[in-house]
Amino acid sequence: MYYIGIDLGGTNIAVGITNEKWEIIHKASVKTSAQDTTAMIKDMTDLCKKVCEDSGISMEEIKSVGIGIPGAINSEDGIVTYANNLNFENFPIVAEFKKYIDKDVYISNDANVAALGEAVAGGAKGCESAVVVTLGTGVGGGIILNSKIWEGHKSVGAEVGHIVIEVGGEQCSCGRKGCWEAYSSATALIRDTKRAIEKNPDSLMAEIAEVKGKVTGKTAFDAAKEGDKTAQEVVDKYIKYLAEGIANICNLIGPEVVLLGGGVSHEGDALLNPLKKEVNKLLYGGDMLKHSDIKLATLGNDAGIIGAAALGK
Amino acid sequence: MYYIGIDLGGTNIAVGITNEKWEIIHKASVKTSAQDTTAMIKDMTDLCKKVCEDSGISMEEIKSVGIGIPGAINSEDGIVTYANNLNFENFPIVAEFKKYIDKDVYISNDANVAALGEAVAGGAKGCESAVVVTLGTGVGGGIILNSKIWEGHKSVGAEVGHIVIEVGGEQCSCGRKGCWEAYSSATALIRDTKRAIEKNPDSLMAEIAEVKGKVTGKTAFDAAKEGDKTAQEVVDKYIKYLAEGIANICNLIGPEVVLLGGGVSHEGDALLNPLKKEVNKLLYGGDMLKHSDIKLATLGNDAGIIGAAALGK
Repeated sequence: MYYIGIDLGGTNIAVGITNEKWEIIHKASVKTSAQDTTAMIKDMTDLCKKVCEDSGISMEEIKSVGIGIPGAINSEDGIVTYANNLNFENFPIVAEFKKYIDKDVYISNDANVAALGEAVAGGAKGCESAVVVTLGTGVGGGIILNSKIWEGHKSVGAEVGHIVIEVGGEQCSCGRKGCWEAYSSATALIRDTKRAIEKNPDSLMAEIAEVKGKVTGKTAFDAAKEGDKTAQEVVDKYIKYLAEGIANICNLIGPEVVLLGGGVSHEGDALLNPLKKEVNKLLYGGDMLKHSDIKLATLGNDAGIIGAAALGK
Repeated sequence: MYYIGIDLGGTNIAVGITNEKWEIIHKASVKTSAQDTTAMIKDMTDLCKKVCEDSGISMEEIKSVGIGIPGAINSEDGIVTYANNLNFENFPIVAEFKKYIDKDVYISNDANVAALGEAVAGGAKGCESAVVVTLGTGVGGGIILNSKIWEGHKSVGAEVGHIVIEVGGEQCSCGRKGCWEAYSSATALIRDTKRAIEKNPDSLMAEIAEVKGKVTGKTAFDAAKEGDKTAQEVVDKYIKYLAEGIANICNLIGPEVVLLGGGVSHEGDALLNPLKKEVNKLLYGGDMLKHSDIKLATLGNDAGIIGAAALGK
């Protein structure tokens, strides 16, 4: 049997077919008709049929369809409660989808789905529990427990970036102050890099930013590698706060692995090695990382398709 | 069928028999032979037999035995990895127990077990997920997901008090700085009450403490009820930090209910009502407490016996 996984984004709809090993056999994508839900459902189901045809797999061979959606989901009832990028409000996406393709259809939030993808076929493969932390514009992620997505009651949990690590601290986009996201997102890293450049205009970071035309999440890491002290301070602070959040997750949930994805994770070992040392200092009972591990996500954008497919496992 | 639940404490061993509704039919306790594990196993199994006899229930009618243990547990292998109050180190408690009573025997950490008790028969009865937070000497607790204890991989999670809410903040007994426990335990409340009295010796709190002979976790709450402004500030700060930790748990795990137990929870509505208002301000997506609820634990010390019994469910 095969599975269809759909990564429904605000810009593109990506559809893939996977085998039972969660390998993508074939995939394709179209632009999202974000404002017209009927057209969007039609586009999505048409693409599913096309991907089947193109790969020579009949709809009868498809066991189920999974959809990862960027928004608040009621997965039990098959409803998108709210998704601001997609003009969805209490939209019965599963029922609408089934008008075109009558298969078992599962939905979940896109971050949760990507975490499941990493758990079945990526950096957390073989782990029964994992927390995936995406260090991008925000700090997103998903929680896998007993090999399944943990969404929280009524799907309200797994907002991994929105745990406060400094009461009254940096303003977070969610309205609260001091959230982990306000320290560990790429956005926060860029903010801190800019602040450091302002205070220390002679830092190599200023030069790098000028050449690139802007400050990015790489600026401080790149300058630190060249021995720039101010940049190293920015990197050290970033890693310190990242470690505090990861240690919180380890102490509270205790997953087999914490997986890092998103832009900042591309720093690889320059991030991972000092990070592990910091987290080791913070684990309860001096546990070191002998139980939980910290690794990099490996699937990139395919995590969405694979995880969506795996919703039907 | 019936279940035996054992609450193995550093001071007492309490044994109870429950029915399938998790009601305690009969219970009894003996002093713990903390330094002699052989004697302790003998005492514990003797007490199990006695409780059965006294209640007229035969050992054949017992489905399983559960033990809640204050320490680090490897529940899968039936081993107490470490328990400083009980002279246990890598002690195969299940195997030893079975030498005397050959039943299915389950173990877990005492805080987890008490949480399970509340979930099957206490304040979280009927909830599939709950986080129990005990506000005592420390901040302990347990996590129930899908109606089962979530211990974390290799039983290292569920240290609910050891999530940092203020990086570099108050010193925690675990070695880390800024843990929730260092703000929301009764110990922290007493510390802050003492600090406030020192700064404001005219506060009613000083008078109450003098009459009682010491500062307790009730001092600030009692004085605040009488209109003492300094005491109200202590209470407000306590509730603010408690709310930050609870909001973290709601945003990350999203349990159906957060249950408060331990000494400070005896303040009841004086704690609960302002706390709910504070937590409401902090939930992700302005969710208010329409999904997660905050309630009081109801079983007191019986939670340990009931939860231990329910390990066999």
